[in-house]
Amino acid sequence: MSEFVLHERLAADTAFVTDWRLARVLLLNDARYAWLVLVPRRAGAVELFDLSQADRADLMEETARAARLLKSARNAAKINVGALGNLVLQLHVHVVARNPGDPAWPGPVWGHSPAVPYQAAVRDALIAQIVKAG
Amino acid sequence: MSEFVLHERLAADTAFVTDWRLARVLLLNDARYAWLVLVPRRAGAVELFDLSQADRADLMEETARAARLLKSARNAAKINVGALGNLVLQLHVHVVARNPGDPAWPGPVWGHSPAVPYQAAVRDALIAQIVKAG
Repeated sequence: MSEFVLHERLAADTAFVTDWRLARVLLLNDARYAWLVLVPRRAGAVELFDLSQADRADLMEETARAARLLKSARNAAKINVGALGNLVLQLHVHVVARNPGDPAWPGPVWGHSPAVPYQAAVRDALIAQIVKAG
Repeated sequence: MSEFVLHERLAADTAFVTDWRLARVLLLNDARYAWLVLVPRRAGAVELFDLSQADRADLMEETARAARLLKSARNAAKINVGALGNLVLQLHVHVVARNPGDPAWPGPVWGHSPAVPYQAAVRDALIAQIVKAG
């Protein structure tokens, strides 16, 4: 069994938040949304059915936890959850706080428009808030 | 506790496939993709955290089951899973077989372009295949 290594594209587009039991929790570097990416630390996982049932249960609980946390932190109208992976095969789950008036509303965020990077201080404050709430 | 009623927009855009333990399984009426929609039969559920933990575990297992089934039925390059709900609040999970060359590839299917309805016979054959495999 090989070791989990975060895909370089995910690493480049995000900042590390924390590790939960299953997933590495990352903040997407786009200041227009509050957008987490959960990556199960399981080498080779691409589809949900590549995980064990126990890992799937953990992934669901961690996804719901991220959703609740973002809903509360941003008073979000809706949480969007997606596992696409057409470009980056490594299994990862997007959890995104959405509100009317955000750039892609009410369409999907994926592929909508280029990210607007965080200022470091804003990013770090949000990460601290998430770690504290999570 | 009120009774589960399928949202009229979901009803209009899909055909009934079957009921699994938690979710109503629907086929989206777009012949360009093999696209299932899973709707937990729980009145009032909008976000994943509105479900009980047991229901969430069922939803994950049913999502993985739908993913495996579509992957196999369509020899799909990738399965896309999404719970957005910006327009239809009733909690529903999209499970979509994706392949290079499909109209939206590699972008998201949501909001990409108008659906191309199935011919009834093609739709019914796919539904029968899914029920048999599922």
